[in-house]
Amino acid sequence: MGFLDAIPNKHSLQDSSSFLNTTTVIALCLFFALLCACIVIGHLLEEHRWANESITALLLGLCAGVVVLLVSKGRSSKILAFNEDLFFLYLLPPIIFNAGFQVKKKQFFKNFSIILMFGVFGTIISFCLVSAGAFLLFKKIGITTLNIEDYLAVGAILSATDSVCTLQVLNQEETPFLYSVVFGEGVVNDATSIVLYNAVQSLDLSNIDALTALKLLGTFLYLFFTSTILGVVAGLLSAYIIKTLYFGRHSTDREVALMMIMAYLSYMLAELLSLSGILTVFFCGIVMSHYTWHNVTESSRITTKHAFATISFIAETFIFLYVGMDALDIDKWRSSKASAGTSVSVSSAFLALVLIGRAAFVFSLSNLLNFFKSAESTKVEFRQQFIIWWAGLMRGAVTIALSYSEFSDSETTSTQDSALMITSTIIVVLFSTVVFGSITKPLIGAVLLRHAKPTVSDATDIASLEDLRLLFLENGDPSDGGNNQPSPKASNLRLLMRYPTSTAHYFWRKFDDKYMRPMFGGRGFVPYVPGSPTGAQDETS
Amino acid sequence: MGFLDAIPNKHSLQDSSSFLNTTTVIALCLFFALLCACIVIGHLLEEHRWANESITALLLGLCAGVVVLLVSKGRSSKILAFNEDLFFLYLLPPIIFNAGFQVKKKQFFKNFSIILMFGVFGTIISFCLVSAGAFLLFKKIGITTLNIEDYLAVGAILSATDSVCTLQVLNQEETPFLYSVVFGEGVVNDATSIVLYNAVQSLDLSNIDALTALKLLGTFLYLFFTSTILGVVAGLLSAYIIKTLYFGRHSTDREVALMMIMAYLSYMLAELLSLSGILTVFFCGIVMSHYTWHNVTESSRITTKHAFATISFIAETFIFLYVGMDALDIDKWRSSKASAGTSVSVSSAFLALVLIGRAAFVFSLSNLLNFFKSAESTKVEFRQQFIIWWAGLMRGAVTIALSYSEFSDSETTSTQDSALMITSTIIVVLFSTVVFGSITKPLIGAVLLRHAKPTVSDATDIASLEDLRLLFLENGDPSDGGNNQPSPKASNLRLLMRYPTSTAHYFWRKFDDKYMRPMFGGRGFVPYVPGSPTGAQDETS
Repeated sequence: MGFLDAIPNKHSLQDSSSFLNTTTVIALCLFFALLCACIVIGHLLEEHRWANESITALLLGLCAGVVVLLVSKGRSSKILAFNEDLFFLYLLPPIIFNAGFQVKKKQFFKNFSIILMFGVFGTIISFCLVSAGAFLLFKKIGITTLNIEDYLAVGAILSATDSVCTLQVLNQEETPFLYSVVFGEGVVNDATSIVLYNAVQSLDLSNIDALTALKLLGTFLYLFFTSTILGVVAGLLSAYIIKTLYFGRHSTDREVALMMIMAYLSYMLAELLSLSGILTVFFCGIVMSHYTWHNVTESSRITTKHAFATISFIAETFIFLYVGMDALDIDKWRSSKASAGTSVSVSSAFLALVLIGRAAFVFSLSNLLNFFKSAESTKVEFRQQFIIWWAGLMRGAVTIALSYSEFSDSETTSTQDSALMITSTIIVVLFSTVVFGSITKPLIGAVLLRHAKPTVSDATDIASLEDLRLLFLENGDPSDGGNNQPSPKASNLRLLMRYPTSTAHYFWRKFDDKYMRPMFGGRGFVPYVPGSPTGAQDETS
Repeated sequence: MGFLDAIPNKHSLQDSSSFLNTTTVIALCLFFALLCACIVIGHLLEEHRWANESITALLLGLCAGVVVLLVSKGRSSKILAFNEDLFFLYLLPPIIFNAGFQVKKKQFFKNFSIILMFGVFGTIISFCLVSAGAFLLFKKIGITTLNIEDYLAVGAILSATDSVCTLQVLNQEETPFLYSVVFGEGVVNDATSIVLYNAVQSLDLSNIDALTALKLLGTFLYLFFTSTILGVVAGLLSAYIIKTLYFGRHSTDREVALMMIMAYLSYMLAELLSLSGILTVFFCGIVMSHYTWHNVTESSRITTKHAFATISFIAETFIFLYVGMDALDIDKWRSSKASAGTSVSVSSAFLALVLIGRAAFVFSLSNLLNFFKSAESTKVEFRQQFIIWWAGLMRGAVTIALSYSEFSDSETTSTQDSALMITSTIIVVLFSTVVFGSITKPLIGAVLLRHAKPTVSDATDIASLEDLRLLFLENGDPSDGGNNQPSPKASNLRLLMRYPTSTAHYFWRKFDDKYMRPMFGGRGFVPYVPGSPTGAQDETS
């Protein structure tokens, strides 16, 4: 079988004069034609404030699903079945890698503590609340066959936010602070919810105690660090190979191919070692953009920048189209046998739990963080908290993939309830993407941008730059000019206590310049062609 | 199932804590690690005259196959089974599209008659000879269960040359004439042999007469023209959409994505309509590089140029790695039950037939063409004929794919003989790629390049350029300056008779400038950024 799971599975050479399975070819044709339509329609709707590419793809996929359903006379909409393998093996890695490759690294690392807090503890809070809520509500709706494992799985499934849609709704240039927090949280959240889900699958749930919770935390920390390290190592290896062997001498194509393949390999290796491939490939992207990207030829730089973005864009559109088409999984709808009332109650319960679960951790953790911050300018305003809450409400392909994985051939749960869980998840994904997604852009405009005063992000930006300048001056950095008087140690320490992020950044820069860049390349350590359109100027390490 | 057909087919969630099928992940890891190794080794061997990337990949694949065989203790080498769908759906299209996209269009169309003649009639001659030869020889070796359809299929299978390896062995800059002839022939040959193979499958072979042959020719001509037209239409459509909607305004990524997807869609549509997808996507590539490529932004131009080449490069390496790993298809080797002697005889017979079949048409058709040409400089020298013969001897993935398609679950032929056919085909592919492939580069150096006198290609190049200048001057082309005196019709006609290709080219240029480019864009009809590194200067339409 090929890329898409078309049916029938065995191809029949005798039927057609071609070697190819006709059903697969039809499915691919339909799919790529829809992709073209999405791109063109997305382009035409560019100026439109309510629409975005995700919503277009989702709705177009739904329409196509209806057409397929009508053409097959209601027998089946299963020309394309949602396939977790396809999603996790081929569609998700390029999206996350590109996110790491294009992310503004300085913003990301400056907000690293907030991101980690939201991504890890936030997801855990949401997971607990949603599981508990589902447990309480479902009894009342009349769903009885779910066991405790299923409830915990529901918690993990509904806690997985959709980082893909966030990328399209928030703008890195206009709202850098929000973008980096919401998107960064999304990446960490993906990892956390998948870890939680796997933990739920593997844990022995008959005897839960405090030790289990500690074990879970231990597993998470282990996964987080090993995954990160693997990604960093893969990125550094690619930088070292390309720098040492000087690939550009012979061929631009080899450089690009090596970058692509090593990034993908890092994801696969992480999966092989049962780590979080998402985290690995994300950090691999960050390292590659910091070192490897500067070691390749000018053409390769332009090519990688745009080719990675294009592949990621195609994968994103593909996913939404897929989810849209798959929503009409007629077999599931039939076998759920639920009345419209039950379906609506379960879906509403899901949506309410998502809203409450996210509100609970965003507002509480933000205020906790604000409590520990002295400077008024670095606090997270209520308006920003609101946006962070809202922008992370969308649920997407990870949710659907996990839901299919849990409920598609469950042995303990009844077929009816399993099907109901899947269809309700699909409704939540459709509703949250279309409704929440289309409101987000205008909402951000209304809440944030019309306020003319500088937002938190700008304020902290200026502060940190000033600190850095101060530090540079006081330490008499040789690269910075002849200001060589010895610096008073006390002031240095005071700064470190006051601005830990900036100081860490300064020491990282020193380490990077002294040890890392000479070995792995990077900006300033490879021949630089002046005036070249690399787009590197807006990037800071 | 995913991209690679790993076994077992059904993934077992319970076994691992991850969602992904472990076998698939292992296979992908192994494969991408080998791809990395291929790229690095290929880079290191760049200066080496005997080696090239195909051979490296093939040998590395073989080694990996041996390792897999040893690790699985001889039980199976089937961690990766050769899959025709994967090959025809995902690996071949980008290679052929890129070939069309990067081909020197002027050279290609100037040699169009030779290319068509070799590609169509040559393949048919080879097909007849190989089929007849196999029929005569196999009786003597002791293979009895093959029927007439199988012999004809063998003819078609062994007539499919490997255009991928040719691309790596010949150099477009050094030997433009040979490159365009051998490679162009390879593309047309792919189409012809697949058409022949399909015809053999569908024809009623119990009563063959002259009408059948005519019908075959009719089918071929129909396929050739409709496929070409489909490719041209797809290319023009992409040019028109991108030019009219002015995609570059918003996003470079959308342009690149649209080009990729429309190219792929053209291939799929052709396959859906039972046309030759290879021809379609090849001409789509040509049209896209002539029109669409000039309508996109500067970054998109660089990106498409390198990204398409990279994807094609990865697909090529992938194929050879795949063929190498698949060569140790232990089940086939076992079920063939043939003695080493029989295997060697069949393989030798195959190789001899390939050599003779190709020699028969290359030398005869070349001399036929020479006979009709008056100018000494435009004739195909014997040395060149020799290279054309040699460079087309390699057999590759198309051969293996067709062989599996014919013999892997044949009902009429005995399992033993079917397996023997497949294993012998694999031997032919390995031998021809490694031995013939590694000799080709030094051979070309020895036969052609040490002769200092201008080769045919250069000579005709100069001639045609002169004609063009003459024509331009005599017709007083307004774009060429103020030379506006009316041209004598007689001389114009005489030139057309004498240099049909150049004249056709001249009229095409006029038509192109007047009707096509204003509508579909193209060089000179879109805002041009001077001094930009597009690499467009070496291309002529």
